[in-house]
Amino acid sequence: MTESSKQRALVVLSGGQDSTTCLYWAIDRYGAGNVGAVTFDYGQRHRVELECAADIARAAGVPHVQLPIDTFAALGGNALTDDIDVESGDSDTSGLPNTFVPGRNLVFLTFAAALAYREGYGTLVTGVAQTDYSGYPDCRQETIDALRTAISLGMEFELAIETPLMQLSKAETVLLARDVGALDAMALTHTCYNGERPPCGHCPACVLRAKGFAEAGIADPLLERFV
Amino acid sequence: MTESSKQRALVVLSGGQDSTTCLYWAIDRYGAGNVGAVTFDYGQRHRVELECAADIARAAGVPHVQLPIDTFAALGGNALTDDIDVESGDSDTSGLPNTFVPGRNLVFLTFAAALAYREGYGTLVTGVAQTDYSGYPDCRQETIDALRTAISLGMEFELAIETPLMQLSKAETVLLARDVGALDAMALTHTCYNGERPPCGHCPACVLRAKGFAEAGIADPLLERFV
Repeated sequence: MTESSKQRALVVLSGGQDSTTCLYWAIDRYGAGNVGAVTFDYGQRHRVELECAADIARAAGVPHVQLPIDTFAALGGNALTDDIDVESGDSDTSGLPNTFVPGRNLVFLTFAAALAYREGYGTLVTGVAQTDYSGYPDCRQETIDALRTAISLGMEFELAIETPLMQLSKAETVLLARDVGALDAMALTHTCYNGERPPCGHCPACVLRAKGFAEAGIADPLLERFV
Repeated sequence: MTESSKQRALVVLSGGQDSTTCLYWAIDRYGAGNVGAVTFDYGQRHRVELECAADIARAAGVPHVQLPIDTFAALGGNALTDDIDVESGDSDTSGLPNTFVPGRNLVFLTFAAALAYREGYGTLVTGVAQTDYSGYPDCRQETIDALRTAISLGMEFELAIETPLMQLSKAETVLLARDVGALDAMALTHTCYNGERPPCGHCPACVLRAKGFAEAGIADPLLERFV
């Protein structure tokens, strides 16, 4: 791993608000010519996310790879890949929201690292955050740090993992999106857990997003699209 | 995670000599009723490995799950999933053998952990070893330790990962196989990198296996099958 490859960044792009902000953050920091994006098709019910990710990468002018992961669906039993109603509160015995796929983020980052290894990206960028969220344990900084160590040892590849949103509230993330020029792209993102466009407005993801824009004092370009 | 689930072990079973030894090691240690096996179909060229794994689990009398992983093939460019000749020596610019899939073991263990989480297994068993092998960095103890930390944090799941072969030579692994009653099952295993049955005898995997049995002073039941 050379110093120059550290200046090439691969962004894990889900098609949502946070990863889109990270994509523009990376472009702002490394230059569009040094940024790529990867999206995982893991059998998510809301296929619109995949279209959003492709549209966002195209609009941003960065190369984009979609990789399949059929394993989570085979593992089964979760609301994001099965046809189960998403509930607002805790819903399984672990006390975690039932959108939790054990290890999902670990797998995403490991596959992204394998792609980065092949393509000469020395930095991964992921939109995980510790604050304001549903308490997914695979989004915590200490989890990311441990995984980075495992990847660096396991691939002999001194990878950096940037988490620009880790300590930000949703409102601060909206302000960061403004600062890095990502606001227009927000109109292309998908957030609603119920997969609706225009967004349903009442699922936990819609509520959290609306709260962030409201607290930042910025109108959500996604909602303006459907006015 | 309860103490009792620590006494339930999930073995990552490839259908090869090492993981089969681990399966019988786990049965010896935890009892057959507390052991399960998982095998990954990651698009390996030698589909016979999958049949071997199923046969071995059936012979051992333990439940067996096969999980698909279509991502490595999509990532592309390696000898284990593509139709590339396996070379004996180092063959790519990294100096690693071209059977190396970056992060393969990290992904296997993470998905195995997700299955263990769902099925109430508190221990994973994997046949990775630091000695006598081709130098895969994802087989080292420090890589496993870092990944165990990442999994435990990321899934909030105090998983143990047992690596009974880590410090053993191939000959010592053969002796362990004898001690835990795995020798008969060796006739069901697959090792040959060229996918041949009877084994080709000249690929690095066949040579290493033969050396181990020779040094242990034990006849390989797989070869006896084809006499």
